[in-house]
Amino acid sequence: MIITADIIGYIAASLTTASFLPQAILTLKTRDTAALSLSMYSLFTLGVLCWLLYGIYLSNKVIIYSNAITLVLAASILTCKIYNILSKKE
Amino acid sequence: MIITADIIGYIAASLTTASFLPQAILTLKTRDTAALSLSMYSLFTLGVLCWLLYGIYLSNKVIIYSNAITLVLAASILTCKIYNILSKKE
Repeated sequence: MIITADIIGYIAASLTTASFLPQAILTLKTRDTAALSLSMYSLFTLGVLCWLLYGIYLSNKVIIYSNAITLVLAASILTCKIYNILSKKE
Repeated sequence: MIITADIIGYIAASLTTASFLPQAILTLKTRDTAALSLSMYSLFTLGVLCWLLYGIYLSNKVIIYSNAITLVLAASILTCKIYNILSKKE
């Protein structure tokens, strides 16, 4: 089997997208966001939104789907972090 | 100024790369990794490594540089998390 750039790209996209699922589950379960950086999740969520626009711009389904999923997961973690800060839990 | 796909791509790459810097700084400063998911950082670091290979495969400098930086940052966070687990701090 010849490993082409596309296959490496699909594996990379799947891993980086899937990786936010365990963090989102841990955060939603424990509501503990003390060790999570607000700046990180703000910048990252904005960045993933840009990747989504980039994918739409190029009509590239892999970029659209992987970043749409990551956007939902990252935004849920960011929401928990902001909620904890606003409700003075941090 | 015409916003082209490339410009959106550069902005997206900069944001998602830069986003790991505040998290790495926070983690290295506080050594608190309780709220960080080991699965996330393991999968994410592996995924970023694949993106780096993908960039090298395509000789795409933006993909190479952004993922090389993210790899260093994500790996440093992952190392802190593993250290805390092995030294029974978690």
